Amino acid sequence: MAQTFRTERKIRFSHCDPAGIVYFVNFFDMVSGAVEDWFSEAFGFDAHSTFIRSRVGFPIVNTSCEFFRPCHLGDRLELELVIARLGRSSIEFSVTGRVGGEEKFRARHKVALMSLETQRALPIPADMREKMEPYVV
Amino acid sequence: MAQTFRTERKIRFSHCDPAGIVYFVNFFDMVSGAVEDWFSEAFGFDAHSTFIRSRVGFPIVNTSCEFFRPCHLGDRLELELVIARLGRSSIEFSVTGRVGGEEKFRARHKVALMSLETQRALPIPADMREKMEPYVV
Amino acid sequence: MAQTFRTERKIRFSHCDPAGIVYFVNFFDMVSGAVEDWFSEAFGFDAHSTFIRSRVGFPIVNTSCEFFRPCHLGDRLELELVIARLGRSSIEFSVTGRVGGEEKFRARHKVALMSLETQRALPIPADMREKMEPYVV
Amino acid sequence: MAQTFRTERKIRFSHCDPAGIVYFVNFFDMVSGAVEDWFSEAFGFDAHSTFIRSRVGFPIVNTSCEFFRPCHLGDRLELELVIARLGRSSIEFSVTGRVGGEEKFRARHKVALMSLETQRALPIPADMREKMEPYVV
Repeated sequence: MAQTFRTERKIRFSHCDPAGIVYFVNFFDMVSGAVEDWFSEAFGFDAHSTFIRSRVGFPIVNTSCEFFRPCHLGDRLELELVIARLGRSSIEFSVTGRVGGEEKFRARHKVALMSLETQRALPIPADMREKMEPYVV
Repeated sequence: MAQTFRTERKIRFSHCDPAGIVYFVNFFDMVSGAVEDWFSEAFGFDAHSTFIRSRVGFPIVNTSCEFFRPCHLGDRLELELVIARLGRSSIEFSVTGRVGGEEKFRARHKVALMSLETQRALPIPADMREKMEPYVV
Repeated sequence: MAQTFRTERKIRFSHCDPAGIVYFVNFFDMVSGAVEDWFSEAFGFDAHSTFIRSRVGFPIVNTSCEFFRPCHLGDRLELELVIARLGRSSIEFSVTGRVGGEEKFRARHKVALMSLETQRALPIPADMREKMEPYVV
Repeated sequence: MAQTFRTERKIRFSHCDPAGIVYFVNFFDMVSGAVEDWFSEAFGFDAHSTFIRSRVGFPIVNTSCEFFRPCHLGDRLELELVIARLGRSSIEFSVTGRVGGEEKFRARHKVALMSLETQRALPIPADMREKMEPYVV
């Protein structure tokens, strides 16, 4: 059984478009924010700073999202993150958004460890990998 | 040969993240903006207003994007839009971003015509369809 | 002694610009979000929906902000809201942002109650006013 | 007679809020973008890159804006920039937004030249100053 990382967002006025529903682009920002939260909580440190210092990064390879139902102002969006696939260099996250049990969207977000010096993929180090494995489905 | 709709964006300071490259979420906003431009230019009217008045809309079904190379401050991003697939109710756009010939990303963005009253898919009317067909690959 | 409304924001990757600090525009979004939170918490209902239903709104008259020190990724920004001046139709909020006691910015944000039908200012009703008064400095 | 720097923005779906008008925060982004455009066009180079290389910057001291009338989807917003006050280290821009001659907002935006090493204000160099002076009202 994979461990699930959970975080929550309040749907605000500024997330919504003239149709009165969340502008889809903001869901991608929330997906990325969930990955950011997972990095800092699962790893117990500010991942971005560490990566910047080590001159490595996790650039995004691809992202996709299915939108099932619209979200509205005032909704509490529950985000659930697991790792759908853990490659040699890459992590493919699956992030689901729900409001009161109703699934609103399901996203896939793939990043890969890269040297910022050489711009080439690097194998994920064993100690990092170990912390990721509980989240792999 | 399909017709290609072209539009351009200047990469600004506010598009860029602490890594000094375009934050990926802004690419989705540009893809959506290209579709918006295409609607207003290909149809010769303000599509959104018309849709709102007719109580129909084109909600997004799914979106995906492959990111090939980062974009930087000052880049002139050329966006190219074609229709990859035109369904009974749905339009699947393919939008490519290039800087000086180098492909930066390729997105798929699928929308479907829907009644805002019944929340059900509607067939794309023949006159609308006719204006879309030149862009189908 | 005025009551202070407090709320908090986590500074995220997406808030930050290529200089590695919060892009100032995001502070205005947080100020507006603090006002939104205050409305819903101080009034015990979803203010925006109610306003939309009653065909009234609180459009922004003016906003200003002094920026004292930059904010960084990972900062916990504490927002403090009070009412600097309560007019017949208008509310002028004062919102301060602090990180660990250090003042980062101080904003003034003035809104006025308006009929969405006539586009004219309306006096703030007595029951609304009563709930606002504890926050007036 | 001061020279005026002019630039234009198309009001898009993504700029607008559930009330169907431009979310005020986006005006601040446009004001900042107008300053960015002015820097690159008035100085004939990519200002940000140069500043980053020289380890100097123009952080924002304060910003304020009066909002007169709402902007709508499809509006062509004309932005006009002049320098309201040119100090030893600081530049205070005045940026006005108009649609078809109607004034929508008027902003003040003050920045100051600063060393990124020492975090202290620097006098604006004479050659920079010379290029700024035509825009001072």
